[in-house]
Amino acid sequence: MKRNTLLGLTGLALAALLLIGCRGDGQTGAVVSDDPMEIARARGLSPADVVAAVKTYQPTGTYDEYIMFASGGHSGQVLVIGLPSMRLLKVIGVFTPEPWQGWGFSKETQEVLAQGNYDGKELTWGDVHHPALSETNGDYDGQFLFVNEKANARVAVIDLRDFETKQIVKNPLSLSDHGGAFVTPNTEWVIEGGQYAAPFDGYAPLDQYKEKYRGLVTFWKFDRERGRILPEQSFALELPPYWQDICDAGKQVSEGWVFCNSFNTEMATGGVEKGNPPFEAGASQRDMDYLHVINLRKAVELVEAGRTRTIKGFKVLPLETAAAEGVLYFVPEPKSPHGVDVSPDGNYLVVSGKLDPHATVYNFQKIQDAIANERFSGRDDYGVPIIDFDAVVEAQIELGLGPLHTQFDPNGYAYTSLFLESAVVRWTLGGPWTEKHGREPWTVVDKVSIHYNIGHLAVAEGDNVNPDGRYLVAMNKWSVDRFANVGPLLPQNFQLVDIGNPNGPMQLLYDMPIPLGEPHYAQIIKADKLQPWEVYPEVGWDPTTQSRHPDATQPGQERIERRGNTVEIWMTATRSHFTPEHVEVRKGDRVIWHITNIERARDATHGFALPGYNFNLSIEPGETATIEFVADRDGVFAFYCTEFCSALHLEMAGYFLVRP
Amino acid sequence: MKRNTLLGLTGLALAALLLIGCRGDGQTGAVVSDDPMEIARARGLSPADVVAAVKTYQPTGTYDEYIMFASGGHSGQVLVIGLPSMRLLKVIGVFTPEPWQGWGFSKETQEVLAQGNYDGKELTWGDVHHPALSETNGDYDGQFLFVNEKANARVAVIDLRDFETKQIVKNPLSLSDHGGAFVTPNTEWVIEGGQYAAPFDGYAPLDQYKEKYRGLVTFWKFDRERGRILPEQSFALELPPYWQDICDAGKQVSEGWVFCNSFNTEMATGGVEKGNPPFEAGASQRDMDYLHVINLRKAVELVEAGRTRTIKGFKVLPLETAAAEGVLYFVPEPKSPHGVDVSPDGNYLVVSGKLDPHATVYNFQKIQDAIANERFSGRDDYGVPIIDFDAVVEAQIELGLGPLHTQFDPNGYAYTSLFLESAVVRWTLGGPWTEKHGREPWTVVDKVSIHYNIGHLAVAEGDNVNPDGRYLVAMNKWSVDRFANVGPLLPQNFQLVDIGNPNGPMQLLYDMPIPLGEPHYAQIIKADKLQPWEVYPEVGWDPTTQSRHPDATQPGQERIERRGNTVEIWMTATRSHFTPEHVEVRKGDRVIWHITNIERARDATHGFALPGYNFNLSIEPGETATIEFVADRDGVFAFYCTEFCSALHLEMAGYFLVRP
Repeated sequence: MKRNTLLGLTGLALAALLLIGCRGDGQTGAVVSDDPMEIARARGLSPADVVAAVKTYQPTGTYDEYIMFASGGHSGQVLVIGLPSMRLLKVIGVFTPEPWQGWGFSKETQEVLAQGNYDGKELTWGDVHHPALSETNGDYDGQFLFVNEKANARVAVIDLRDFETKQIVKNPLSLSDHGGAFVTPNTEWVIEGGQYAAPFDGYAPLDQYKEKYRGLVTFWKFDRERGRILPEQSFALELPPYWQDICDAGKQVSEGWVFCNSFNTEMATGGVEKGNPPFEAGASQRDMDYLHVINLRKAVELVEAGRTRTIKGFKVLPLETAAAEGVLYFVPEPKSPHGVDVSPDGNYLVVSGKLDPHATVYNFQKIQDAIANERFSGRDDYGVPIIDFDAVVEAQIELGLGPLHTQFDPNGYAYTSLFLESAVVRWTLGGPWTEKHGREPWTVVDKVSIHYNIGHLAVAEGDNVNPDGRYLVAMNKWSVDRFANVGPLLPQNFQLVDIGNPNGPMQLLYDMPIPLGEPHYAQIIKADKLQPWEVYPEVGWDPTTQSRHPDATQPGQERIERRGNTVEIWMTATRSHFTPEHVEVRKGDRVIWHITNIERARDATHGFALPGYNFNLSIEPGETATIEFVADRDGVFAFYCTEFCSALHLEMAGYFLVRP
Repeated sequence: MKRNTLLGLTGLALAALLLIGCRGDGQTGAVVSDDPMEIARARGLSPADVVAAVKTYQPTGTYDEYIMFASGGHSGQVLVIGLPSMRLLKVIGVFTPEPWQGWGFSKETQEVLAQGNYDGKELTWGDVHHPALSETNGDYDGQFLFVNEKANARVAVIDLRDFETKQIVKNPLSLSDHGGAFVTPNTEWVIEGGQYAAPFDGYAPLDQYKEKYRGLVTFWKFDRERGRILPEQSFALELPPYWQDICDAGKQVSEGWVFCNSFNTEMATGGVEKGNPPFEAGASQRDMDYLHVINLRKAVELVEAGRTRTIKGFKVLPLETAAAEGVLYFVPEPKSPHGVDVSPDGNYLVVSGKLDPHATVYNFQKIQDAIANERFSGRDDYGVPIIDFDAVVEAQIELGLGPLHTQFDPNGYAYTSLFLESAVVRWTLGGPWTEKHGREPWTVVDKVSIHYNIGHLAVAEGDNVNPDGRYLVAMNKWSVDRFANVGPLLPQNFQLVDIGNPNGPMQLLYDMPIPLGEPHYAQIIKADKLQPWEVYPEVGWDPTTQSRHPDATQPGQERIERRGNTVEIWMTATRSHFTPEHVEVRKGDRVIWHITNIERARDATHGFALPGYNFNLSIEPGETATIEFVADRDGVFAFYCTEFCSALHLEMAGYFLVRP
């Protein structure tokens, strides 16, 4: 698109241009002016606001430079947001049925959702926590997105060619996870750390907590070629019944290692109603919990050598084996931490103990040395070696109140969220990073207030080996007074922060209300790394298999066939009609109904609503989708296209008749 | 909040201020500058873009002046959007379960959803078409919002004190509606017009279409005091099996009358596969369809006089009675129209035939005169008088290709969406409006391109008796190339247009992608007319009844009681614990679990996830919510708070144990 830009105008000429033409007439309270300064004045914008406005405004038909994938929390979905405009571009249906996109309504997508059933029980929501983009050599490659689901311990695989969910795996040993999804630098493994300990199989009373309850971290093997997790090649590492929390994969020098936090190493079991300390106190009694240091390469060797047990059909590397064979070590960490974040070079692990105002930085090489030299201060109750804290800590930096999560930029700065202080702090890394920023290492250099109660933060490409570092998004849990009042349930607040000037202050640019889930974590990728399809590769495509649908229907091949009590329909959809337009069956018939959208134009999606039978499909150009049901209600049901596709969209309808 | 604004600075001083301080260093590709013009230049913004940026940017902690309620289409929900920032503030769960807000997961909300079941069958989605704000004297009063659901013919009532759905009514006679929801000027009646004709009860073959199939418009009686529709005082008006479309209520001089469009007065029944014309052709053969002119006051008199039949327990005013008693008249209208829109004074009805480039304007007084003088050109096959077209038409204005829907401003301008032309056209009303705008009446004065395929449009308060007219939102069905590519399913595109200067051109300000439903219609209210609660009025509130919950629990009253095989729990939630923390039952027990959020702080919402059992609640400050289930799986299930409520949020958990 050819655009009339400001290029070529001098600043002063432009200012003059913009300052003419004010014709304030006050009609209906509007500012009638072509002068942005006049408008800004009338709207009460400060100079900083004007800067923020022009930094974030994205004119029609121009594209955001960054794409953020944010977990949708207990919405069960993934949010796709453009930066810097902070506009929601897509909601990916993952664990929760969503009718607009037909997610969980077609037979094909119902089968994907059913992969995540628990013990035969249908689950219609999830608690999505951490998205992880696939990586090649530690850098986002834009091919896949993985997310975990805390409430039932599941992981989903999303294909970024069409931004749709392809697979859900249910953890067979657990109903609780938190430390996932994270990937190894070449996406061989998808990491799912546990959370609330429980028996791997069945019931055990709480007084058998130490003996029968267990934690775990699960390593899901990913087959990039097939775009699928392979459960039969995956395994879990048995852990003590501490509550494992966020994990991160080692990278560069620490590739092959995995790090997970924990809390409640006290093994408190709650019971405030019985006079016990409530979990919030019981799980916070000790000053230190344990950073779990896991040698993944060694673990895989042991798994391949058959050193696993099989529980509920799943391979488990036993705790005693892991402890004895150098797979698992603990390092004390300030109590109840949230994030463990590996620096881009893999040298440093940053742990933020939310009840401690410091970030604790561990040096990976020192950990290796301590292991080699057995610098252990003892073993825990389960026999896991505890590495001497002082031997491996590189620095502790006082950041502020409630530090949670850290990401990085390319200039040797780290950014940590401060939950209690409602702020983001920028601080310097040391070691080889010192010459990048040229400042005092391990020192706070800037802080910006956010609104309010920040959980995680995301820096553009800020957790891969090549951080971009232009923008930061503060993922705030409370919004309180930031937005117009829309009732007692408030949105979250994503705040965009400009961190592009390492020599100047961070600048708050934009507040984005998030009223459709509580995102916990996000990753931000440069948009040009993504190469999604505009339409499906051919007419008759099954997105759930990314291949030709066996029941694809070409124009002229539409038909209805009866076999006994089964009626099967092969239908096409195009602007502005379905073929056939009449389908008549007998009450009690099983109906299998395939619809192929034969359009090749971008955005020519058709919907398909079948009233009374609770179906809606979204059939994108080229897609074939199926519904299957028993016609258990007689009557006349007018099906129709639910996507306003053309001037004659309302006429894109037909009659489904069920004879009594 | 005290803000440093531009007020008091002269334009030139300000421009000078803004033009200093450029420190471009190019680090990481970012523009390092405090000068908005420098930034605009670097980002390729035009002068018009800069104006749009400052007109739409809403600084942190400042509030949008207008709130838009948009239907969510086949998402089944309602979207709440702030203007001019075009930010999504809330998604109201209506017809589709939504776990983040706990909609359809608590027993209380499941009971609201179950009101909308069809013939005992659970419906888990809807196709929301038209929101209608409650009115007092024809003006939005900010109390209630009504929406219809096309796919199953349902209407929902939303209370704007907490922005939650309180009631769903299922139309007992139909599975298809489109011409709703619209309200009468004092919200006595909520109008639900039909769409695809079908028998009122059961099956009939398509060759009995003229005899057995029927259209309808349903008038739901609303009790404002109780905040509920009263089905027993509601009724349907039987109509010929034309496909009725959008309706509007008369206002001011036309109060007491209702107008509905129709198409397929050809009574085509489709069947392209049998060699019949497809619906798109069969339903477009005649040049004219019928505007339905309904005397609602008269209809109510007849209903009160017992002139109804009862079908499926619902009162129906028969077609022959309506035709004979002066309730129903037809006026020819250019074929296959979409909108019929009543001007703010009630004098004019604007009909846009999407296959005709004109708006046809009818004069209400002329319609009254024609009825009084029996200026009829005949009767249709069902005996309904057809008013002479020429006797009642005030004007026909050539607007452009594919006119669909019209709204109004306070200055005598009308705004019509042009689907095929992808434009919004501004044109002048005549009659008493002429002196307002001082221009040639019934004339096009401006046109702005949109992107792409606009369906409806919404003008601020533009369909009530006092239009505001500052902003217009184009609700575009296709976005094609407007946003970064996120796969084959594209968002819709809402475009904000500044119409505040009646003497200047309309100005496109902002593109908002809508990736969570296909909104069909919206209403825009001044934000200060809304007075939502910040928290529920007292601890122990049931939002579904807006009264004290019988199982509200105060601190200290928490308990678990067993009665036979039923275990009932009264629990409280506060930062950062649930009381009790342990709940143990036997496999097979029925569990009834009430949770009261005892917080009084705004935004102190707690979630409640029960793994494996598929529950998540969102419990706002003061709310009491219930889950009920059979504990049919044994094991250990760690329940936890799903809203990040405090630094010790992760410790806000407990154990639900089911003994085998």
